Amino acid sequence: MTLPPGATGRLGAFVAASDWRDIGPALRLSAVRSVLNHLGCALGVARDPTVRAALEVMRACAGATTSTVVGQAGKLDPMGAAFVNAIAGNLLDYDDTHLRTVIHPAAPVAPPLLALAEQEGLGGAAVLHAFILGGEVACRVGNGVSPGHYARGWHITSTCGVIGAAAGCAKLLGLTAAQTAHAIGIATSQSGGTVENLPTAAKNVSVGGAARNGILAALLARAGYEAAPLAIEGPLGWARAMGDAPDVAAMLDGLGTQWEIARNTYKPYPAGIVFHAVIDACLDLRAQLGALRPEAIAAVEVAGDALLLARGDRVVNNARDLRVSIHHSAALGLLRGTAGVADFEEPALADPALAALRAKVTARLDEALPRGAARVTLRLVDGRVLEATVTHPRGSEARPLDDAELDAKFRANAALGGFAAQAEAQIAAIRALGEAPDIRPAMRLLAAR
Amino acid sequence: MTLPPGATGRLGAFVAASDWRDIGPALRLSAVRSVLNHLGCALGVARDPTVRAALEVMRACAGATTSTVVGQAGKLDPMGAAFVNAIAGNLLDYDDTHLRTVIHPAAPVAPPLLALAEQEGLGGAAVLHAFILGGEVACRVGNGVSPGHYARGWHITSTCGVIGAAAGCAKLLGLTAAQTAHAIGIATSQSGGTVENLPTAAKNVSVGGAARNGILAALLARAGYEAAPLAIEGPLGWARAMGDAPDVAAMLDGLGTQWEIARNTYKPYPAGIVFHAVIDACLDLRAQLGALRPEAIAAVEVAGDALLLARGDRVVNNARDLRVSIHHSAALGLLRGTAGVADFEEPALADPALAALRAKVTARLDEALPRGAARVTLRLVDGRVLEATVTHPRGSEARPLDDAELDAKFRANAALGGFAAQAEAQIAAIRALGEAPDIRPAMRLLAAR
Repeated sequence: MTLPPGATGRLGAFVAASDWRDIGPALRLSAVRSVLNHLGCALGVARDPTVRAALEVMRACAGATTSTVVGQAGKLDPMGAAFVNAIAGNLLDYDDTHLRTVIHPAAPVAPPLLALAEQEGLGGAAVLHAFILGGEVACRVGNGVSPGHYARGWHITSTCGVIGAAAGCAKLLGLTAAQTAHAIGIATSQSGGTVENLPTAAKNVSVGGAARNGILAALLARAGYEAAPLAIEGPLGWARAMGDAPDVAAMLDGLGTQWEIARNTYKPYPAGIVFHAVIDACLDLRAQLGALRPEAIAAVEVAGDALLLARGDRVVNNARDLRVSIHHSAALGLLRGTAGVADFEEPALADPALAALRAKVTARLDEALPRGAARVTLRLVDGRVLEATVTHPRGSEARPLDDAELDAKFRANAALGGFAAQAEAQIAAIRALGEAPDIRPAMRLLAAR
Repeated sequence: MTLPPGATGRLGAFVAASDWRDIGPALRLSAVRSVLNHLGCALGVARDPTVRAALEVMRACAGATTSTVVGQAGKLDPMGAAFVNAIAGNLLDYDDTHLRTVIHPAAPVAPPLLALAEQEGLGGAAVLHAFILGGEVACRVGNGVSPGHYARGWHITSTCGVIGAAAGCAKLLGLTAAQTAHAIGIATSQSGGTVENLPTAAKNVSVGGAARNGILAALLARAGYEAAPLAIEGPLGWARAMGDAPDVAAMLDGLGTQWEIARNTYKPYPAGIVFHAVIDACLDLRAQLGALRPEAIAAVEVAGDALLLARGDRVVNNARDLRVSIHHSAALGLLRGTAGVADFEEPALADPALAALRAKVTARLDEALPRGAARVTLRLVDGRVLEATVTHPRGSEARPLDDAELDAKFRANAALGGFAAQAEAQIAAIRALGEAPDIRPAMRLLAAR
């Protein structure tokens, strides 16, 4: 098997050659933080029917049960565990974001690595290293097709996630550069997932599928399967079939020196990332005015970029819609002053005060605002007009959650899933993952008794 | 769960309401023929390393081993068996074709149905019925995005196959109309596979993945998972993300009265369907001239439509390339007068006479020729110029293989895989599938001892 030319070959060689000793402490810490954040999110929804249904479907098809399903009793085979854990990690839109691509890297990339490593009894450093490389590949192929890819209807976390998952699994399994390139190329033929399906469980299937099929791509490459030399950027390859002339330089330039995965950020609110600035701007206004009665508000105008409007200017029909609603984000910030998990559940949908305020919110395109920013103009019945603009919301690269905030988020998630008593031990085990000679004890802590 | 509007809802309602008693004898026979042809192709490659590698990878992840892998000893879980059997059925490009879309329907649709039915002990009529409906859905969604879909780089057998597989599995499992619509919608978020990867094993992964993920989509819909109401044709849905404004009328008009799956045809040659006219034209010329020495040939020009040129005007690097080469198809027809499995294997790649003649072949676009047609102009060293045009090659809808030819093809495939002694019993069992109260005895005949 020879190393193919082009992007799969370059990425394959980069991943295969990467040495853990060359990965600096900041990058290592970013991987720990990503994994901690991911596992907390997955723990929080351990009792959610969407997660339980996926678990039951995969259990009926499961092979040797080697791998933990976060927050559940009983294990699955690695592909099944990766599928369910990816769904769980991403379910509440509470996970993480690489803003340039709007990829949520941990959900597709971390679960297959943890599941495979648990099966094989590998150490935590190998998992973190493979996560850094897999996340890097996912974000970089995403850079090469953004922003057209998402705008066209591709759920980029799924479509690029499977490519990153394949690269990470290839590293974990110790594949050669050529095998890794082919694993990446095989992943391109399993890449899918649409934005149309985002408000439904079909979104979860594509996120879970990215994790599961990343394992399959690496296993098949190890077994000798090959892909086209130019699987990513060829004339009938992944990027162009998906509608984009890929920017190969954006995928490859600075590989190993500029780390995209180091730009991963962790969400303070369980909502689509572009709504975080809306929430923060409304929290700012509320802080100026104090608690507001809904009757005091005449109108709320939210301005943002095309992505914000495409994602969030919608009729709210169910709890899933609340997580991707400009109107609900604004209403929460102004009225409740909170934006926690419960604020996006069914009772918040039915709350008449929130519903009344959502109806007063309008959205407006302002191309001058950068991605992830929002400006909120609040008109009160008494005639006052207040405005707040947030360019860098809480949790963004410029204002990241610190470690204490990240641990607090994990604790809240663990409590949500019924694991409050285990949270400190879980946090300690994940924070020490880089030194763990075998990840199985840590995974045991994440299972339900 | 309510029935969604739009294409998924219409297709879901159609599939769920379909009654076997309303399926006429011709349509039933076409399903038997498709399954017979598919299983013969799968038997023929039972010893191929690509099939064996897929089997070993899936075996390591297999759950309850309920489902036969064609031509192999030992069973897999339904998703694993569907994956390997779909790969095997399509491996040699020897399977079947719905020409309007260039979908090869049986590989993605039949294996998941056989695997699930074997697990559940269902009867043959249920399998044939689900195959008719699943194949119909695959071809119809393909009609709605053709020909742009394939031309853009989508391997339509995989991308539409998963949708048909989901619909067929939903029927087999007895899902409601709404559940079936959601299964179809979930499948759209697992749809993938590129033309760039066609000359490699990554193609097989997308074909196998279509079969495997069709099962998953149906199981998840049964467990309550939903998809977007307009998952197929919505503004950010499957068709538009893949680059096409879908022709919904082409998907839905005449549903249940005009059967696209009845137009399925069976290949006489193990090569891409568009090369069949090239082979037949060269066989015609050879019949006129008698056996030709390669030195007697000055030049060969092959004219065809854009699809023929896009697929087949290529440098031949390996045996997979031979199956999709204008040059090799012409050389075989003129020089050997045969186009069997062995004519597309490694020795034919190395044969100096074939290589010399391949080098004398040029391809030319003639937009006036319909899809699937070819005109071959042969210039001899002695100055003679002969021409042959084939619009309807052997095995096409206008000149279909009859049942005796189809049985002969099955026998040849069975012998190729080492199952010559079992072929008659296998044919008899498949031909009687519609009356079998339980498909397990027939599946047992297809396994290696």
